[in-house]
Amino acid sequence: MMTHITVNASALTATAFAPFGDVIEATRRPSTSINRGTSERFADLARLDVLEAGGRPILSIIQSSPTPLPLRVRMLERHPLSSQAFIPLDGRPFLVVVAYDGADGLSTRIRAFLASGTQGVNYRRNTWHHPLIALETTSRFLAVERAGTGRNCEKVQLTGESVYVAVP
Amino acid sequence: MMTHITVNASALTATAFAPFGDVIEATRRPSTSINRGTSERFADLARLDVLEAGGRPILSIIQSSPTPLPLRVRMLERHPLSSQAFIPLDGRPFLVVVAYDGADGLSTRIRAFLASGTQGVNYRRNTWHHPLIALETTSRFLAVERAGTGRNCEKVQLTGESVYVAVP
Repeated sequence: MMTHITVNASALTATAFAPFGDVIEATRRPSTSINRGTSERFADLARLDVLEAGGRPILSIIQSSPTPLPLRVRMLERHPLSSQAFIPLDGRPFLVVVAYDGADGLSTRIRAFLASGTQGVNYRRNTWHHPLIALETTSRFLAVERAGTGRNCEKVQLTGESVYVAVP
Repeated sequence: MMTHITVNASALTATAFAPFGDVIEATRRPSTSINRGTSERFADLARLDVLEAGGRPILSIIQSSPTPLPLRVRMLERHPLSSQAFIPLDGRPFLVVVAYDGADGLSTRIRAFLASGTQGVNYRRNTWHHPLIALETTSRFLAVERAGTGRNCEKVQLTGESVYVAVP
């Protein structure tokens, strides 16, 4: 029997996203005044985990074409050696699709969040997630990742299951 | 005698900025098609140098008030243990003020660049630079820096010299 599931994206919050990683945003959490009071610093917003097995941090820019909604989820990926962060550079909302670890069918473990244009995400090591999902128009994202040797990408296909993500 | 110098900012280019660090932008340099052709990846755009003496990479957001022009340069700083990168998150131009190393008077070694809203910079370790200079309105920047022990900030004051940076 073909499972057919629609997952509705909810607003991205640090609390809701905590099982999967960090939300990178200049929130009203304590900040430090720097540069003679001309700037506020929201420090150390993500648990960057990119040094395993001789890894080093790298910065890349990913320019993504928009995905029509609802999105059919056909695969997820995860990085067993590192975290991976994406921060929007064009101030536009994007879609974040992740899955809990667990023994239940993958389709039932999928969650979706709508990130605002001022929120980035940092996927914790081994968090299942969908590749970048831009909305509306082509958008740039800064990626903070690990470079280094070792197999650092696993993929899982959703077969026999039909999962769609919608933004209500 | 009081030296009085006006430095005009020029457009930021990778070539002009090479003595000081990297320009972080999705240029038309070779990119890789990823995620089944939905994205283009401009990889490894900055020489992140943040691991010295047990350092680790951190991400912060700096929210800066705008600086009126012309800017009087009163001090510069540098980081002897690491690079430091800033990427605009609100798509707005900002001012980059750096200085060559050298034996001549500091005021004659200062250079200024106007970064577009789609360009970030990565200051190489030991590059003299001014703290963030937002223009026009309060703007957010992502900072990619080193956290760790050790003295990683030196400052120099400009005294007896009056240096202004202008955007022609």
